Amino acid sequence: MNPLYATILAGGSGTRLWPCSRSSRPKQFLDFTGKGTMLQEAFERIAPVIPPERVWVLTGARYAEMAREQLPALPEHNVVGEPVGRGTAPPIGLAAMLLQKIDPGAVMAVLTADHVISLQGRFRRVLLQAAHVATRGHLVTLGISATRPDTGYGYIERGEMLYEGEFSTYRVVRFTEKPNRATAEQFLSSGRYSWNSGMFVWRVDSILVEIERQMPELYAGLREIVSAWGTPEQTKTLARVWPALPNETIDFGVMEHARDVVVIPVEIGWSDVGSWHALWEILPHDDDGNVARGDAILMDVHGSLVHGNGRLIAVIGVDDLIIVDAGDALLVSSRERSQEVKKIVRELEKRGWQQYL
Amino acid sequence: MNPLYATILAGGSGTRLWPCSRSSRPKQFLDFTGKGTMLQEAFERIAPVIPPERVWVLTGARYAEMAREQLPALPEHNVVGEPVGRGTAPPIGLAAMLLQKIDPGAVMAVLTADHVISLQGRFRRVLLQAAHVATRGHLVTLGISATRPDTGYGYIERGEMLYEGEFSTYRVVRFTEKPNRATAEQFLSSGRYSWNSGMFVWRVDSILVEIERQMPELYAGLREIVSAWGTPEQTKTLARVWPALPNETIDFGVMEHARDVVVIPVEIGWSDVGSWHALWEILPHDDDGNVARGDAILMDVHGSLVHGNGRLIAVIGVDDLIIVDAGDALLVSSRERSQEVKKIVRELEKRGWQQYL
Repeated sequence: MNPLYATILAGGSGTRLWPCSRSSRPKQFLDFTGKGTMLQEAFERIAPVIPPERVWVLTGARYAEMAREQLPALPEHNVVGEPVGRGTAPPIGLAAMLLQKIDPGAVMAVLTADHVISLQGRFRRVLLQAAHVATRGHLVTLGISATRPDTGYGYIERGEMLYEGEFSTYRVVRFTEKPNRATAEQFLSSGRYSWNSGMFVWRVDSILVEIERQMPELYAGLREIVSAWGTPEQTKTLARVWPALPNETIDFGVMEHARDVVVIPVEIGWSDVGSWHALWEILPHDDDGNVARGDAILMDVHGSLVHGNGRLIAVIGVDDLIIVDAGDALLVSSRERSQEVKKIVRELEKRGWQQYL
Repeated sequence: MNPLYATILAGGSGTRLWPCSRSSRPKQFLDFTGKGTMLQEAFERIAPVIPPERVWVLTGARYAEMAREQLPALPEHNVVGEPVGRGTAPPIGLAAMLLQKIDPGAVMAVLTADHVISLQGRFRRVLLQAAHVATRGHLVTLGISATRPDTGYGYIERGEMLYEGEFSTYRVVRFTEKPNRATAEQFLSSGRYSWNSGMFVWRVDSILVEIERQMPELYAGLREIVSAWGTPEQTKTLARVWPALPNETIDFGVMEHARDVVVIPVEIGWSDVGSWHALWEILPHDDDGNVARGDAILMDVHGSLVHGNGRLIAVIGVDDLIIVDAGDALLVSSRERSQEVKKIVRELEKRGWQQYL
C-alpha cells in the first residue's frame, strides 16, 4: 500500500457554538470534552496510523500559530496558513501538490478538525481500508450513514458495489447538495444515501488530474505557489497568488463531476457538532440527562447542558436548557432552539458589538 | 407635633436574593433598580420629611462602614454597628434610648432597609399621620393590606377604629406570627387583617416604658450601654454588654403584649423582595413581560428577569426564567421556584464553598 498522509482542514470560523466559538478562536481550537481541543482530538485519533511528520494542517493564517501551539508534535512547517479563506478546493489542491513533490505515490486523507468521531478504532480501520481502495486510483469519499432527514448536509447516492468487506466500497451515482425536506426524507427511506462528511481519501496524482481537468485556473495558481515553496519567495508568492484563486469547495468544484468517485458508507459515531444541542447529544449524560462541566449545582434539572468556565453555575427547576458561560458572554437557550445562536451573532454584528464576535 | 426621627434597620443578612446577596454584602446594600441601593432608597424616600441628622441606621458592625459610604449625607455617628445580631428588640431599644437623651419628646419611626415602597408620596403622608397618632402615646404599627394568603408574614388583626382619615387608625386586637395556609386564607377573607411590615412609629418614652415592663433585662443592658455612649468607654461597653442582651424581635418581645398598640393599614406598593420572583414582580416589565438589566439580547423570551453584571447575556426561546449574573456565580432558575435559592445556599454550606456565601 502506498504511504498514507493526512491533511486536516482547520480553517472554519463557524459561529454555531457561540459564545464559546469566536472569530478569534473558532470551535476547532476549543475543548468541549475536557480531553483536548477538537483539533487535538482530530490529530490524536489518527496518530496510531499516521505519524506526525505525515500530517498537515491547513488553516487561516491568523490561526496558524494557535494550531502549532496546540500540536507541538507536528513539524512547524506542516501547518500552512491560508492568507484568506477560498473554500476547500484551494487548500486541498495545495496540500496534494506539496505532497506530490515529497512523495509522488502519496495517498492523502482529507480530514476535518471540527467534527467529533466517537468510534475511533473503527474510524482508523475505515481510513486504512479507504487508503487501500485509493491506491487503485479511485477518489474515495467517506459517507456517514444517514439517520434522519437532515437538510443541512450534502447527500451521496451509492450505486454498484465495487469491493465487499468490513467496509464495502460503492460507486457514487450522484452528489446532492443540501436537499429540501421531502427529498431528504425520500433519500433516507431509500437506504441508498449517505451524508457527505467532507472526508476524502485519494492518491495525490488522482485528485490533481481532476483539479487540472475541472479547475485549470486553480491548478495553474497552485503550480505557481508550489514552485516558490521552500524558497525565500514562498510567503510573498502565496500572499500574491492565493487571493486570486477561485473560491470553491472541493465537492462542487471537483467531486460532483469527477470520473472515478466511490463511497465507503461508515458508522463511526460522527457528529459535526453543529449546535449546542448536538454537543449535548454526543457528550455523556448523568441520570437526569444532564451534561455539566465546571462548578455547577443542579437542582431538579433535566436534559440540560451546563458549560461552565470557572464561575459557579446554580440551576433550579428547569428542563432542556443550554447554559454556556464563555467568560465575557453568557448564553441561556432552550435546547431545541440552540441553533438560533446564529441570530444572536447577526444581532451582535448589527449592533457593532465586535468584542463578542 | 413632636419632632420625627427615623431608625433604619439594616442588619439583615438574607440569602433569598443569592447570588447577588452575600454575607459580605446583603441585599440592603445592593442596587437592583439602577436607582441606588435599597439602603439608599430607604434613606432617600424619607429625606423630604426627615432631615439626615435625624436619621439613624443600625446594622451589623461589619456593614457599618459600607452604610456610611452609601449614605455620605448621614452624620457618621448616626450609623451604629451591632457587635453581633440579637434580633430587632436590642437595636430598636438602643435607638429609642439614645434619641431620648437627645430629645425626650422624640417620635421615632422604625423603618427597614430591605423593603421596596413604590408609592413614596403616600408613604410619606402615612409616616406623618402615624407620627401624629404616636404623639398621643400610641404604639403605631404600619400594616400592609394583605393581598394573598401568604404564610411567610406576621398578621395584625384590627379592631375598633380610633381615628378616621385618609389613613385611618385602628386598635390592634392581636398579632399572629406566620400562620398556616388555612388560617392565612381565613384572615384574608375576613378583611380585618394586615401584614406586619416591621415598620413602627412611636414616642421614645412610650416604647421604653413597654421595654422596661416586658424586657427588664434588655432595658438594664441598654441603660449600661447608653451611660457610656459618647465617652471613651462607648465601644468597649457595647462590645461587652451587647452579646449578653436577649436575642429577640420587637414583635414577639414587646408588641404582642404591649398595652396601647394601634395599626394604620396602608397600600404603599410595599414588597419585602423576598425572592427573585418578587423582584421581577415589582420592577417595570417590557411588552414581553421581561425585566432586563445590563447588556442583554432576548430572543423570543417572556416573563423573565435577566440581571446582568457587565457581561453580555444572550437568551433564546425561554419563558418565566430568572437569570442572575453575580460576577463569580450565576443563577438560572425557573421563576416560580426562585425562592429555592435557599437550598442552593445550604448546598454551598454543605460543600464548604464559603467564597460563594
